[in-house]
Amino acid sequence: MKYVYSFGGSKAEGSSDMKNLLGGKGANLAEMTNIGIPVPPGFTISTEACVYFLEHDYTLPDGLKEEVEEHIKTVEEILGVKYDDAENPLLFSVRSGARTSMPGMMDTVLNLGMNKDSLRGFAKKTGNERAAWDSYRRFMYMYGNVVLGVNSSKFEHLIQEMKNARGFKLDTDLTIDDLKELSEKYSKLVESDTGSPFPEDPKVQLWGGILAVFKSWNIPRAIEYRRINHIPGHWGTAVNVQAMVFGNMGENSATGVAFTRDPATGNKIFYGEYLVNAQGEDVVAGIRTPQPLNEDIKSDDSQVTLEEIMPEIYNELNDIRIKLENHYRDTQDIEFTIQDGKLWMLQTRDGKRTALSALNIAVDMVGEGLITKEEALLRVDAEQLNQLLFPIFDIKDLESAKKDGRVIANGLNAGPGAASGKVVFNAEDAVKAKERGEKVILTRLETSPEDIAGMYAAEGILTARGGMTSHAAIVARGMGKCCVAGCGELEIDYAAEQFTAGGKVVKAGDEISIDGNTGDVMLGVIKTSPSEIVQVLATKSMQAEDSALYRNFQKLMGWADEIRKMKVRTNADTPDDAAVAIAFGAEGIGLCRTEHMFFEGDRIDAVREMILADDLEGREKALEKLLPMQRGDFIGIYKAMDGKPVTIRTLDPPLHEFLPHEEKDIRDLAEKMGTTYEKLQAKVNSLHEFNPMLGHRGCRLGLTYPEITAMQARAIIEAAVEVKKSGIDVRPEIMIPLVGHWKELQDQKAIVQTVIDEVLSDAGVEIDYLIGTMIELPRACLTADQIAKEADFFSFGTNDLTQTAFGFSRDDAGSFLGEYEKKKIYERDVFQTIDFDGVGELIRIGVEKGRSTKPDLKIGICGEHGGDPLSVEFCHNLGLNYVSCSPYRVPIARLAAAQAVLKEKDV
Amino acid sequence: MKYVYSFGGSKAEGSSDMKNLLGGKGANLAEMTNIGIPVPPGFTISTEACVYFLEHDYTLPDGLKEEVEEHIKTVEEILGVKYDDAENPLLFSVRSGARTSMPGMMDTVLNLGMNKDSLRGFAKKTGNERAAWDSYRRFMYMYGNVVLGVNSSKFEHLIQEMKNARGFKLDTDLTIDDLKELSEKYSKLVESDTGSPFPEDPKVQLWGGILAVFKSWNIPRAIEYRRINHIPGHWGTAVNVQAMVFGNMGENSATGVAFTRDPATGNKIFYGEYLVNAQGEDVVAGIRTPQPLNEDIKSDDSQVTLEEIMPEIYNELNDIRIKLENHYRDTQDIEFTIQDGKLWMLQTRDGKRTALSALNIAVDMVGEGLITKEEALLRVDAEQLNQLLFPIFDIKDLESAKKDGRVIANGLNAGPGAASGKVVFNAEDAVKAKERGEKVILTRLETSPEDIAGMYAAEGILTARGGMTSHAAIVARGMGKCCVAGCGELEIDYAAEQFTAGGKVVKAGDEISIDGNTGDVMLGVIKTSPSEIVQVLATKSMQAEDSALYRNFQKLMGWADEIRKMKVRTNADTPDDAAVAIAFGAEGIGLCRTEHMFFEGDRIDAVREMILADDLEGREKALEKLLPMQRGDFIGIYKAMDGKPVTIRTLDPPLHEFLPHEEKDIRDLAEKMGTTYEKLQAKVNSLHEFNPMLGHRGCRLGLTYPEITAMQARAIIEAAVEVKKSGIDVRPEIMIPLVGHWKELQDQKAIVQTVIDEVLSDAGVEIDYLIGTMIELPRACLTADQIAKEADFFSFGTNDLTQTAFGFSRDDAGSFLGEYEKKKIYERDVFQTIDFDGVGELIRIGVEKGRSTKPDLKIGICGEHGGDPLSVEFCHNLGLNYVSCSPYRVPIARLAAAQAVLKEKDV
Repeated sequence: MKYVYSFGGSKAEGSSDMKNLLGGKGANLAEMTNIGIPVPPGFTISTEACVYFLEHDYTLPDGLKEEVEEHIKTVEEILGVKYDDAENPLLFSVRSGARTSMPGMMDTVLNLGMNKDSLRGFAKKTGNERAAWDSYRRFMYMYGNVVLGVNSSKFEHLIQEMKNARGFKLDTDLTIDDLKELSEKYSKLVESDTGSPFPEDPKVQLWGGILAVFKSWNIPRAIEYRRINHIPGHWGTAVNVQAMVFGNMGENSATGVAFTRDPATGNKIFYGEYLVNAQGEDVVAGIRTPQPLNEDIKSDDSQVTLEEIMPEIYNELNDIRIKLENHYRDTQDIEFTIQDGKLWMLQTRDGKRTALSALNIAVDMVGEGLITKEEALLRVDAEQLNQLLFPIFDIKDLESAKKDGRVIANGLNAGPGAASGKVVFNAEDAVKAKERGEKVILTRLETSPEDIAGMYAAEGILTARGGMTSHAAIVARGMGKCCVAGCGELEIDYAAEQFTAGGKVVKAGDEISIDGNTGDVMLGVIKTSPSEIVQVLATKSMQAEDSALYRNFQKLMGWADEIRKMKVRTNADTPDDAAVAIAFGAEGIGLCRTEHMFFEGDRIDAVREMILADDLEGREKALEKLLPMQRGDFIGIYKAMDGKPVTIRTLDPPLHEFLPHEEKDIRDLAEKMGTTYEKLQAKVNSLHEFNPMLGHRGCRLGLTYPEITAMQARAIIEAAVEVKKSGIDVRPEIMIPLVGHWKELQDQKAIVQTVIDEVLSDAGVEIDYLIGTMIELPRACLTADQIAKEADFFSFGTNDLTQTAFGFSRDDAGSFLGEYEKKKIYERDVFQTIDFDGVGELIRIGVEKGRSTKPDLKIGICGEHGGDPLSVEFCHNLGLNYVSCSPYRVPIARLAAAQAVLKEKDV
Repeated sequence: MKYVYSFGGSKAEGSSDMKNLLGGKGANLAEMTNIGIPVPPGFTISTEACVYFLEHDYTLPDGLKEEVEEHIKTVEEILGVKYDDAENPLLFSVRSGARTSMPGMMDTVLNLGMNKDSLRGFAKKTGNERAAWDSYRRFMYMYGNVVLGVNSSKFEHLIQEMKNARGFKLDTDLTIDDLKELSEKYSKLVESDTGSPFPEDPKVQLWGGILAVFKSWNIPRAIEYRRINHIPGHWGTAVNVQAMVFGNMGENSATGVAFTRDPATGNKIFYGEYLVNAQGEDVVAGIRTPQPLNEDIKSDDSQVTLEEIMPEIYNELNDIRIKLENHYRDTQDIEFTIQDGKLWMLQTRDGKRTALSALNIAVDMVGEGLITKEEALLRVDAEQLNQLLFPIFDIKDLESAKKDGRVIANGLNAGPGAASGKVVFNAEDAVKAKERGEKVILTRLETSPEDIAGMYAAEGILTARGGMTSHAAIVARGMGKCCVAGCGELEIDYAAEQFTAGGKVVKAGDEISIDGNTGDVMLGVIKTSPSEIVQVLATKSMQAEDSALYRNFQKLMGWADEIRKMKVRTNADTPDDAAVAIAFGAEGIGLCRTEHMFFEGDRIDAVREMILADDLEGREKALEKLLPMQRGDFIGIYKAMDGKPVTIRTLDPPLHEFLPHEEKDIRDLAEKMGTTYEKLQAKVNSLHEFNPMLGHRGCRLGLTYPEITAMQARAIIEAAVEVKKSGIDVRPEIMIPLVGHWKELQDQKAIVQTVIDEVLSDAGVEIDYLIGTMIELPRACLTADQIAKEADFFSFGTNDLTQTAFGFSRDDAGSFLGEYEKKKIYERDVFQTIDFDGVGELIRIGVEKGRSTKPDLKIGICGEHGGDPLSVEFCHNLGLNYVSCSPYRVPIARLAAAQAVLKEKDV
């Protein structure tokens, strides 16, 4: 039985496909060695040895000791030094390495082999006696704590005591003699605490380290980590024993970190920094200023590049860079050390990157023939695309704002992006400021349809009331505008034109910033960068040829479109929204909410007239006024969509949403409508509901007021006839909301069908149309086989489905979801990503039952989950025909849909 | 191929198991004939003939004509008369008869064979020439309309014209000559309308009648009826041709109807009435007063019984009565005619009966050895048992109230039974009136916990606001008290002590009646009869030995208990409720709502103190006050239940339900609590929810305020320890409400478990306890496999499950469910009977998934559906362990659970 695998000296016994046996780190060290990368030599003790150890009462398997001895010799031979040599000491690190990364969960020990003898050799080689003693006492601390189990506070206490006695503030103030004395004290501490002297024998140290790593597999935090991440306990960990190398051995030593391409932009330049005669932590610590690797990234003449001072080593490093990219076929994040003029690679891993660099790198690498289009698609995180589609805060500016305590409140992250500007308290001021070229944040208790112009004009919207489905939130997301909603901490005083939050008073004209990702409200301006892609696509304020990013974006999107199987539609209520969505690649409208049109201009008057009518006749009179307006809306949308399918939902919200609720507003409206306050108040009262979400809405309105459905059907089909006659193709899909029983759909379908038949026969025109339904109630999923008999298509409304399946309303859940998050009850935000186990199961049942009746039933999803990558993948795997999301998330959905195909192939 | 089957002359070719071939009526006529019942002879043309006719372009199969001719001869021979004999005519009826009854859907023709010749023979035999002519012209009308398709209004017009000309008001004013002239006019009408003279030939008449019945299978109303009732169109109908018999052939003729036992009480007396020299319609019409059949039911000396005037015939009839009961093994509703001293039985069918008679008959018949206990259990409609457990209105009194327009409003039938009394407007007056011995109806806008005493004192409760789950409704059902809730038409003026409804003003002290079955509110007293069973069982105001009904009830319940497999528990919140439920046979408490206790007395103060506390410390202080009160409650309940399991649900409703909402009340409370109005108002506002049903309630309270769960767990287990120590067994089952995710249950269970471990270890006592959960959210059903890992038991909360599955709240659904009822969207009231397709499917999934994790998982149901017979059967079929319902529905559930077992065996 072989337990130990060597690496180093340009060959290794392992390789990257031996992760189960050697752990991730061991396999990777072997892989690097095999492709000729200079890695400090060492060996990996396999996971099998660990498993044996754990299963046999902490005893080692036969032969392991001997095998390890053998491999130490091999390392000694490669480096020409001895582990137990005081003059020219070899030091080892011991690190854990499980199959999958478990960062920080298990133990690591560095500088094994350090003792009173070897520290002298170390001092001679580095020419720094103090560093040698400091390393020694640090090693005693680390080993004493990790391997021997002495509480770290006891070491801390000793050093603090000495600094106090000397009147020192910093560890670095300690002299060599102090450090010598301290190491004596550490030694006594270990002996008194463990009953044995500190082990000076390097062999004893090494085995102590190896066994400590084995044992650390079963320390509580590791067990907990495995439980959470579903990692089986029987895997065990490998142990990597590797020669230490030092970048602080003099002027021909150095250490550095680098990225094979610019991690911020993805540009193909070698990007990194180094320090001569230094250790890795010095680069990170920021005491000395690291220098750039090469000319490409040199920012001023005082800098000295590695390319200049060690040209050969730089070239070797650059060759390795290219070799690594070619081998791993991805941009790498590397660490290196130069010891005595010899380059050692300590680590390579896939480089973390921004959305921007991810996109550019992926597309470039396809151009370079390094990866395929499919691989490129999987290299870009779909959710991260958001960063390219909305303005974002400058990271440093944002961090300093947070450090300075400028965050004064937090609300719901209701609309995407980032925005800074002067506070205004009404829509009119916002419009005026915009005309003056000023950026503003429109700040309101809550918004209403009259605020639309101001919302357009503002950079961002901030409200004190309302949830993720409030007017402000829905409109902002549709516009792709930054919005923080329901920020209850805000005390707005319209009269004084100011608000208070976090103890600060903010007046009209003061500058604030709002973060659509976190919901933070901050004082002052934080620098934002706009989205190039949106500037080209949606606002046309920039030319395509001026944006390399745009071109790469379009390339990637094109590849996604070739591969994906699901269509991507958009939720859009106006021709403008529709045009933006088309620019982003939408292939149709999956949800057009007719009620949003009801709020515009003086339509609301006709809507209110309808609601307040005492009888059918009165309602029909008001509906006649609405008919030409709705028809006009649909004509605009059909034209914008130019033959693409348009799914129009009939009236959904409860009627009281269209009426005012404050006494003053009711009085005003009563006067306007020529009725009495009392009568209007009584009507408002009679429409009051205990639970409006579970009330008289959706198809229930159509069942009780068939004339509303009939008017809407007429507007939809008459508009279609008119557009068709003008030579533009139309494909209306009429969608009945909130169906829970097939008879509801049957009833509404009959009304719609009658109107369509009449209109088409009068017009003598043929229109391709469908009549289908939202599936947004649990009962609809469970009886989808019955409902499918009446439906041409299904569209899952996952917002309401989530609310009814969980039995909580999004608007009210704020009072307990904070505590739920703390207690980690839900794995993810169920309003962002479909809850696969519950809501997902309902969808699965709905699809299965629906298709059991109609195998070819067209099925989509139009909840906000339609733009979430994980949810898009889920929909793909269920065989849905399309997803529909807000215009600004269309690219995300396109990419996610392609990735879903690729991931499926993988399996 | 044989198409025609004879009956009559004490033998028949068919039998009762030939329904598919002969239809229900034909098979039954054959059956009666075979057991020696004197049935007027005739024959049945099979459904096969009809199917042939319909499938072959309305042509008759070969040989049918000849077969019919043959059978006519057989009938003639049996009766010794000829079909075509003018002197002594045989007349026939022709009736449809499908496999299952389709009442009134298809055609019937009587008196076939009547013509100008035979009517003379008929006149001679009856000695009544006018009757003969009247029968003739009626036959022409019926045949002309049904068979020949002449519009009935044309016949009506002719008779009206004649009456106008003569100045007559009534048909009976017409003389013989008038009738002769009318028949001439009818004849001309038929000829001009159809182009052929009225068929005088009896053979032609007969075939016309038979074909008309065949064709009537496919008339629109029959097709519609089949569609609704899922009757296949290919069944076809049989045709029954039967000799007519006449009870108006003189003084030794008669006709009558009878029940083999008293249909009102079930007593074993021969119950019926008859008229000498009369036809069947005369008995029903009420022009002559029918006479009693025998001494047993004679009510005054002027009456003449059939037993007296025709003793032999009476004895024959009585023998038939016994024979029929023995044969059909059930009480029968029979029709008979005596023609010329010869008794003929026209019909027998299972007698309709009241709940009272159903119970008595079923139990008596077991005693008589006529049926088995199992059959007896199936003979009593479980839902109908309600009539025996609650006061009911006298039917005649109720009908006259309705006729008189005394129904002034209609609300929700929120509490069972019927009640009459004087209107009082507050609880105090109700209590005082009760002390004076007066019956009152407590009438309130809505009730609150302070009204409890008044609610106990009142006969019934009437509220203007609130739904089926309002305080009034829940408390009333718990008390088994009549309640009409949410009666929006009521305009209550407390100050003036009156209410207005339906244009009437009702003042305090005026008498009204409310109907818990229909929700009607009526002026005046309507006589009610109390329930004997409740008088013995629950109120102990009557001795068991004084009630034969009670004894039969207990017998039946005993048989049900032997057979049923599901346990029956009750929903009870107090020791009193528990005691009543035990009397009704409850085997445990399935739902004890701890929050109901929170409303009592000054507990509400401690509850409010807890809610208004600013921090954990404040809440814990208030909870400490609540702890001994809750512990006391549980001690009382455990004692009442004496070792039976008690399922206690932790706090469920949102906290704002415990706070006042009107300004005045808030001011009062602020003063009482020593806080400011503003602060209290702010707290009330902060607890406001858009959709309280979907808000911060159920286990969400326990997750955010773990101290509440801990206090309740402590009260539950400390009470258990105390009762156990006193020598009484206890079996608490702690139930966490509104769990949607297994981690919610895990969290709450940990809290409960910690408290229990601590209390039990301190006390040194062992208690059998369980920790389980309500399953009342769709997500809980869909992830029941995960939840089951944490749960000792499941209890389906079908009220909330129905609301979330359908996505409507019971309180708000009133605004559209009326229209839904009109449009027949739902088959049944989904809040009364489980919606099998949707909610039922969720329950099925929940049971299946739950038991996939724990095969022996104890599962029950504690929604209001637990007392609904159809739902109980559904639960049995799913393998549930128990149902739990309000105390007064326990007997219904016990019977329904037994019936479910028997019906399952049947299949």
